[in-house]
Amino acid sequence: MTLLETTLASIKPVDPGLLATAQAKLDKKTKPLGSLGRIEEFGRRVAAISGTMEPDLSKKVIYTFAGDHGVVEEGISAFPKEVTPQMVFNFLNGGAGVNVLARHAGAEVRVVDMGVDFDFGAVPGLIGRKIARGTKNLATGPAMTRSEAVAALEAGITLALDAKSEGVAILGTGDMGIGNTTPSSAIIAAFSGTPVRELTHRGTGINDEALERKIRAIEQGLAVNRPDPADPLDVLTKVGGFEIAGIAGLVLGASAAGIPVVVDGFISTAGALIASELHPSVKEYIFAAHRSVEIGHTFMLERMDAEPILDLQLRLGEGTGAALAMTLIEAGAKVLCEMASFEEAGVSEQNT
Amino acid sequence: MTLLETTLASIKPVDPGLLATAQAKLDKKTKPLGSLGRIEEFGRRVAAISGTMEPDLSKKVIYTFAGDHGVVEEGISAFPKEVTPQMVFNFLNGGAGVNVLARHAGAEVRVVDMGVDFDFGAVPGLIGRKIARGTKNLATGPAMTRSEAVAALEAGITLALDAKSEGVAILGTGDMGIGNTTPSSAIIAAFSGTPVRELTHRGTGINDEALERKIRAIEQGLAVNRPDPADPLDVLTKVGGFEIAGIAGLVLGASAAGIPVVVDGFISTAGALIASELHPSVKEYIFAAHRSVEIGHTFMLERMDAEPILDLQLRLGEGTGAALAMTLIEAGAKVLCEMASFEEAGVSEQNT
Repeated sequence: MTLLETTLASIKPVDPGLLATAQAKLDKKTKPLGSLGRIEEFGRRVAAISGTMEPDLSKKVIYTFAGDHGVVEEGISAFPKEVTPQMVFNFLNGGAGVNVLARHAGAEVRVVDMGVDFDFGAVPGLIGRKIARGTKNLATGPAMTRSEAVAALEAGITLALDAKSEGVAILGTGDMGIGNTTPSSAIIAAFSGTPVRELTHRGTGINDEALERKIRAIEQGLAVNRPDPADPLDVLTKVGGFEIAGIAGLVLGASAAGIPVVVDGFISTAGALIASELHPSVKEYIFAAHRSVEIGHTFMLERMDAEPILDLQLRLGEGTGAALAMTLIEAGAKVLCEMASFEEAGVSEQNT
Repeated sequence: MTLLETTLASIKPVDPGLLATAQAKLDKKTKPLGSLGRIEEFGRRVAAISGTMEPDLSKKVIYTFAGDHGVVEEGISAFPKEVTPQMVFNFLNGGAGVNVLARHAGAEVRVVDMGVDFDFGAVPGLIGRKIARGTKNLATGPAMTRSEAVAALEAGITLALDAKSEGVAILGTGDMGIGNTTPSSAIIAAFSGTPVRELTHRGTGINDEALERKIRAIEQGLAVNRPDPADPLDVLTKVGGFEIAGIAGLVLGASAAGIPVVVDGFISTAGALIASELHPSVKEYIFAAHRSVEIGHTFMLERMDAEPILDLQLRLGEGTGAALAMTLIEAGAKVLCEMASFEEAGVSEQNT
């Protein structure tokens, strides 16, 4: 069996018994029952996913996957393509949004070149997993080959499995790739059948003409490629991206390894959606960081039964939302571990 | 002039020029314009309130104000009254929810006895500002005298002014007081004229009969006391609480001193509402931490034009939501200070 197949075979539902044990522990804490709302949910889920009632999330890593997109030749982005490698250097120098927010959250940022159209050579700190120098233009044919899609997924899987051996307690996803809201909209359109116009937004801030070009490019890409919604690998191959595949692989690997994984915004959720269409139990390992401004995001979240943690009108990507949400998830783990029980604190319990 | 009067006289609107300068600085950062959404709002507002484009929020303090309520004799709470002092000891021992979440946020918790019905004597760490051993029953007469209300407000003001001298960069509010959702609902009912039933919720989790008693107690309190909505001090006196007054004072003092103040949930917002009715510019210094499960909270937030930062179904109080929101506000300050500009990072700018 391939790594992808063994990974899919090893993903199990999260143990409901562990979820109940964690909630029972939370219910003994000095607070009205359930009064910490979703913070309790985060603590309970992290405990059950990690298989311990004392989860320690101090080791946190965000993988920011970068890739370029042939579809930019359709004129669908507000930024020129050279920004992808420029931002990779910005990540490596610690100056980008995700660096600032990850430092704040106590998380490490690791940058993965999945398919940037630039020859980095040997750059300290950059994880080289380049499949190709950018995808092909999805508006005129498949973005990649099926074997490229599998290789990109397996690169992400391997990173998650290695993180598990290293003792990483929680993973985050992030993306960088000029033009990558276009494949992301195409992916949700392919799965849901919803009209492209209802799923397509201005990305980093394009004008009306560029938005029309973007919608046309996606519609044309779906018509030309006919991705099969019952075959998530086909959707990824036809209208995906290399960084999206890396994210999908990381989510699959995290689910197989029993690591909670915080999925950033629109592009990351496109990757997580590919993963959850490949195996339904993946949804139980995912924390949706935030509700993106991108209109297609809500359709993805609904399809994955995911309730986003934050709603701060973010649309930057990179893993910025994942970094912010990680602090709230870690808060839930600390409530489970550190809060005093009624008995320990000598506090009278609720009347029933 | 009294301290309350000089404080009110010294509250000024936040300088719009500083807000614009901060946004201009954010617009040079390596990200699409506005793409960090409300995180940019937090950075911009903190900079303008603090009067610096390099805001450093490392010194954070949450004041948790405690008080008891005579109205508990109406049978309106799920917990017995002795829980208020028991929880004060829990705070001082570091085992409560606010302790765990404040430690996580890097904030100090300071506990203030504004009016607990318990003689603490000299307890290390407890800030004694007791006005009385609990309020009177607001269902049958005024909760306190007007001079008690002023003294409680001034206690909060003094804490904020002292925090300013100490170099505290951001303040948070919190509350503890069995029965205190009852005066909080009464306060918003008094200001808004909205029927009590539409503003009154189950608090820590009371049953149907207790909810009916709570609604009746508030309706009766408003009928007996006739608080004047045009006189916020009268509302506080007639249907308020000592911890609510302390919170209102802290918010007034923070606004006068130019310190951003993070207002926790329902009870804290009742205090912030008193403050903002006393001086409209107070609203510009406030960050609403979260949207509480308490139904009256939305009415308060609307009246204060405040958009809550988090929506995590919290209803614990203590300052737990303030601690969580502080980490996001500090993230905004760090984006302003630490992110690289397009020029510094050598990244191409957006096409216009």
